[in-house]
Amino acid sequence: MQVVVPFAAGEPKTRLADALARDERREFARAMLGDVLSAIRATGRVPAVLTTSRIDVDAPQTVDSRPLTPAVNAVLDEEGTTAIVMADLALATPAALERLFSSAGDVVLAPGRRGGTNALVARHPEFRVDYHGTSYLDHLRIARTIGASVAEVDSHRLATDVDEIADLAEVLTHGDGAARDWLLDAGFSLSVTDGRVDVSRER
Amino acid sequence: MQVVVPFAAGEPKTRLADALARDERREFARAMLGDVLSAIRATGRVPAVLTTSRIDVDAPQTVDSRPLTPAVNAVLDEEGTTAIVMADLALATPAALERLFSSAGDVVLAPGRRGGTNALVARHPEFRVDYHGTSYLDHLRIARTIGASVAEVDSHRLATDVDEIADLAEVLTHGDGAARDWLLDAGFSLSVTDGRVDVSRER
Repeated sequence: MQVVVPFAAGEPKTRLADALARDERREFARAMLGDVLSAIRATGRVPAVLTTSRIDVDAPQTVDSRPLTPAVNAVLDEEGTTAIVMADLALATPAALERLFSSAGDVVLAPGRRGGTNALVARHPEFRVDYHGTSYLDHLRIARTIGASVAEVDSHRLATDVDEIADLAEVLTHGDGAARDWLLDAGFSLSVTDGRVDVSRER
Repeated sequence: MQVVVPFAAGEPKTRLADALARDERREFARAMLGDVLSAIRATGRVPAVLTTSRIDVDAPQTVDSRPLTPAVNAVLDEEGTTAIVMADLALATPAALERLFSSAGDVVLAPGRRGGTNALVARHPEFRVDYHGTSYLDHLRIARTIGASVAEVDSHRLATDVDEIADLAEVLTHGDGAARDWLLDAGFSLSVTDGRVDVSRER
């Protein structure tokens, strides 16, 4: 099984612009990518990065400047069984990824918050992705159309893609890799307001 | 194992006040409670409701008007192995709950978003809860203090407590019970704005 990690090299994590400067978003995104690659390697698999432009990374990379959906579908056109794992799953552990990789099903989906699909395994030759909007429901529909069986991986760690400020609290609470270290070094910490967890930053 | 579902009967789901009127919030909270009780029963266990005031529900109930933490700790004072499952886990399935109930560990924690603890199993006689703020981290600390082993249940379904408008999209996407039906009947549907999933309401 090939494991592919798409990465938007140009202007990553724009929804974090209120919390992080542009260079910081780039550094943080790279830290998350490194954590995801490490977690995949710890399952015994060799990840490849599918990046919008060449980056300095210790992994095989394919450059495709197109948006996510056509770039991933070009991979699915050429490869057999393929796993697609998003680069911002800073909470991903080898155990959570192993559940994804080893689940039976022509298509295995790890839903993300807000209708997304944060990771998947495609074993059916006709399965193609559509990441826009309600991609989880779209992927269910696509699988049904081609007669592919579907398994769902129910994982908070895989459901948590980090792209809003509130998600940083998840990294500080449940992360244990470079992304969490980066946030701590940048002065972020957990805070509690009205009994709810948030992040605050010391500058 | 006793399975206890705490329920705030008075003024439920105040964070949904922008989306739902008071009576609607009460109805919706009751629909979610019903779904949680059904999912627990489908694992072969008999749930009991720990409610702040008497409600009309088809399950044994204990009334305790105190806040969540002392009310749950009063249960833990008296019972042996006990599971505590929040009443707003509208995505909970029997499979997700079975993973919780059957995980080995003196304390089993199912983290919620934003530092919460959405479900747990307490098998250690000295374990007590503290639901305020970063309860997940507090529960890890409490377990460490008493020398209790801890297991984590990594479940998106159990991590998703429904208390903000954004969470309604999760119910519409992944739910299949009375809470989802209630939202559909109330005119809610998924909508996509800027490639992101949201809910909108037709009145």
